[in-house]
Amino acid sequence: MSLGTLRVLPLGGMGEIGKNMTVFEYDGRIVVVDVGLRFPTADMLGIDLVLPDFSYLRERAQDIEGFVITHGHEDHLGALPWVMRELGPDARAAPVYGGPLTMAMGRSKLDEHRLKDVRLEDLEPGRELELGPFVVELVHMTHSIPDACAVVLSCELGTSLISGDYKFDQTPVDGEPADVARLAELGRDGVLLLCGDSTNADRAGWSPSESGVGPQLEEVFSRCEGRIVVTSFASNIHRVQQVIDAALALGRKVSLVGRSMRKNVNIGSQLGHIEVPDGLLVQPREIDDFPDHKVVVISTGSQGEPLSALRRMAHNDHRQVTLRPHDTIVFSATPIPGNERAVNETIDRLYQIGCEVITTRDAPVHASGHGYQEEIKLMLNLLRPRYVMPVHGDVKRIHLHAQLAEATGVDPTDIFRGENGLPLEIDEQGARFGERQQSGMIFVDGVDIGDPADVALRDRRMLSADGIFIVVATISGQDGASVAAPEVIFRGVPFLDEADGLVEEIRDVVEGSLAQAAKEQMREIDLVQQLLHDDLAAFVYERLRRRPMVLPVVVEV
Amino acid sequence: MSLGTLRVLPLGGMGEIGKNMTVFEYDGRIVVVDVGLRFPTADMLGIDLVLPDFSYLRERAQDIEGFVITHGHEDHLGALPWVMRELGPDARAAPVYGGPLTMAMGRSKLDEHRLKDVRLEDLEPGRELELGPFVVELVHMTHSIPDACAVVLSCELGTSLISGDYKFDQTPVDGEPADVARLAELGRDGVLLLCGDSTNADRAGWSPSESGVGPQLEEVFSRCEGRIVVTSFASNIHRVQQVIDAALALGRKVSLVGRSMRKNVNIGSQLGHIEVPDGLLVQPREIDDFPDHKVVVISTGSQGEPLSALRRMAHNDHRQVTLRPHDTIVFSATPIPGNERAVNETIDRLYQIGCEVITTRDAPVHASGHGYQEEIKLMLNLLRPRYVMPVHGDVKRIHLHAQLAEATGVDPTDIFRGENGLPLEIDEQGARFGERQQSGMIFVDGVDIGDPADVALRDRRMLSADGIFIVVATISGQDGASVAAPEVIFRGVPFLDEADGLVEEIRDVVEGSLAQAAKEQMREIDLVQQLLHDDLAAFVYERLRRRPMVLPVVVEV
Repeated sequence: MSLGTLRVLPLGGMGEIGKNMTVFEYDGRIVVVDVGLRFPTADMLGIDLVLPDFSYLRERAQDIEGFVITHGHEDHLGALPWVMRELGPDARAAPVYGGPLTMAMGRSKLDEHRLKDVRLEDLEPGRELELGPFVVELVHMTHSIPDACAVVLSCELGTSLISGDYKFDQTPVDGEPADVARLAELGRDGVLLLCGDSTNADRAGWSPSESGVGPQLEEVFSRCEGRIVVTSFASNIHRVQQVIDAALALGRKVSLVGRSMRKNVNIGSQLGHIEVPDGLLVQPREIDDFPDHKVVVISTGSQGEPLSALRRMAHNDHRQVTLRPHDTIVFSATPIPGNERAVNETIDRLYQIGCEVITTRDAPVHASGHGYQEEIKLMLNLLRPRYVMPVHGDVKRIHLHAQLAEATGVDPTDIFRGENGLPLEIDEQGARFGERQQSGMIFVDGVDIGDPADVALRDRRMLSADGIFIVVATISGQDGASVAAPEVIFRGVPFLDEADGLVEEIRDVVEGSLAQAAKEQMREIDLVQQLLHDDLAAFVYERLRRRPMVLPVVVEV
Repeated sequence: MSLGTLRVLPLGGMGEIGKNMTVFEYDGRIVVVDVGLRFPTADMLGIDLVLPDFSYLRERAQDIEGFVITHGHEDHLGALPWVMRELGPDARAAPVYGGPLTMAMGRSKLDEHRLKDVRLEDLEPGRELELGPFVVELVHMTHSIPDACAVVLSCELGTSLISGDYKFDQTPVDGEPADVARLAELGRDGVLLLCGDSTNADRAGWSPSESGVGPQLEEVFSRCEGRIVVTSFASNIHRVQQVIDAALALGRKVSLVGRSMRKNVNIGSQLGHIEVPDGLLVQPREIDDFPDHKVVVISTGSQGEPLSALRRMAHNDHRQVTLRPHDTIVFSATPIPGNERAVNETIDRLYQIGCEVITTRDAPVHASGHGYQEEIKLMLNLLRPRYVMPVHGDVKRIHLHAQLAEATGVDPTDIFRGENGLPLEIDEQGARFGERQQSGMIFVDGVDIGDPADVALRDRRMLSADGIFIVVATISGQDGASVAAPEVIFRGVPFLDEADGLVEEIRDVVEGSLAQAAKEQMREIDLVQQLLHDDLAAFVYERLRRRPMVLPVVVEV
């Protein structure tokens, strides 16, 4: 009996940083690893979130054996509610597995969407789980959130491993380094395919340990005379622990500010990932009851997010914390590419208030959660995979990861530089890319989701660039003659008050076009509107050198 | 006889990087130093350029003795055409002074705006020029463009110096270091006020020399087997020279791609700032006549600008240059804050083609044009100014520059952390900030300029976020009854096809509102429209959870 074909189809995370989602398929049965989202860029007007295009799964919902989530970050877990809602009850019948913290975060997201019927199940690393033709196992890794795991998927063809986000931190804050022994064991037994994190494939050497950050924070704190505000990712629970420890060591109280910060510390402490000594925490409204040198605030907003607590504080717009000169703000995080401007603007506001600002340029108060080049090579050497498909990176990082694989001795023909929608197909004969599948982006706008090519977004671009002209012409149903003066309305077209006469001229153009239409006995409203549009657009461009949207409305009475 | 008051009013460049413009005023007469612009951020929808608000000068045009431009970069020179056009003939009667290259670049800009009546006059460093109560002198400095100068303005109260952009490059490419001797002389004779560049006030040490970049470029080039494309700022003429020299040394031809690259090299070589050996340059269309290892392309697009040559090449959309695998792209520039995403996207496209990409992370192929902390301190020590007002920087950098001034022994009370619109006023008694003057941004949209608070921009933001609903109701002039079915049109409101019934429902809402208006004998069209707007907006929000612009048009027949 010959074996089947393993298909590994990335629906996100390839050629981009974000919205990780990979479909593993064997014998017609599917396991989905990660269901992540991305945040929109500035040109995605009015869009709230970006999801991977999961059309491939729409027809296959009943073939899904389960979902496995590597860890609780938005780019791995965040799309879960949308995907579950859209794929319907067949997909929701398949359980979702992950570490306890990951599942608690997933539950919190699903609750917000009132999706009660999704089965979330904790999976402990090392436990083997049968999901159709696959045996699935989590391997404990270290990252900037607890409970981060690699996923092993074995089928009769062999063993695949998708690393999730990881670093080989030898001194993690919780004392539990990545399970190198299990990785080595897998490598010894033979690994068919490695899909590894490429995030820091452009950084030489080894990433610094998370536990090195704590002493640095304490050192920085010890030099501060006023209040201290530390901002970091709310999900970086071990970082929050280290801030708490440093505050404790220096006799300062700690206050948590920002909804997600409080939520994550709450979940994290329920699950034993964070220890807060009794009496250390104070409510934000109590901060002013303590002397300045007795307070550390831990806040959201390290990315300059518009509604975050720190951004509000920087704009003097936070209900409970008002910053003052001589407060020190510590950015215990680096800006995600694209957020630089928002972060810089926040920092500048803080300087304007008179605060001191400490970033990673001033002191090593942050450590990346992703392994550097030597760690990526260690992973390759531990697993010695037959095939390698780098994931989780833009084209550059995937390219550099491929070079690292080559450097560790993987045959270049066994390294696959994939793309979203391009399935890697492996059988007894070998591995190759298969037929391209639908992939791309889905936009979330409010509560709805849709196609980014949607005409609405094109319209928004046009409206945002040059505004809109609306002309309402009322014509007689008998002879097409204009029966009321045309209404001319514009929005988003600047500086028109300076050219009052223009509106009059536009009315003349409309009247002229209508007269022409009447003369030509043009009775099809659509045609009249088209004529009006063309005449008006030409006139407006000639006069304003701009191309606002021109929208003629012809009302027949 | 007591002396008057010197007023130094920054209209731009304070608390921001860009649009530098400073007004020096004594005895009712004005000299303006620099007239720069900024580029819009993503939230400035449809805006092309940002100018300093120069309202202060509108009433004072006849008091302007002259304009002095420190160097030819856009953030110092770029607003000149707009300011000259807006301030009218009185301002245009005042000459514009600067180095020959600066004036040539200014002329080229004014020509594009067909402003023929502006007097541009070359001013050689060291020559003293009387401008009303001021004696003005340029001091030769080094920067990332030739002809960069500091401006000395002396009046009977004392001597001010505004540094322009500078570094103390000991081995500049043209062999002419900054005129330290003249600065020292000025310091010995006594300097009242220093307004110094703060750009790199956050970088410790000394900036690397421009001439160190050439050997690095040659080293990188020597490892390339395919074609080489170098991208840099077109105005960085000495950088272009060094690329040319490296190409020459390795026997490669050079082709200039991008309009501004060709223009600047042309101007630069006419003025003797760049030497191109005969026969070295080839036309872009001739590139394919040479073997790959014999070609270097110098291209615009180092900032990922949408229409630039490199961005077009990366998108396979350049008429003359088609990139191929094994071409090497060298970014001899770093992204200006805010441009990171555009640059990263371009780089990723290049990797997708299969190109190699070299940035400053891979090799020191760029040197900043702005002095680091030790250079800022050297400037302070040379001039030993009585008062210091750091300029040309965001709040953070101005704050750090102020700290450097303090470190060199300037009394903290003599250091002024200024803001746009806040004049520093100096007289025999001392120095202090005076009454705040109008300042801020002016937006350029197409050919027009206007206020950023313009309602058009607010409308664009609303339109871009959620789109627009237009409802046209036709009512009888007699009794206000609806005489035709309401027209419902929407643009930029997504996913409505899925909710076809909605348009019907909206019609019902409109009919209902109209019936109510008729019943209440509401005959004022404005009131009817307001009622329609409120009813519709409430309905749409309830159904779509979105707030598109709602625009009711009531036509009475």
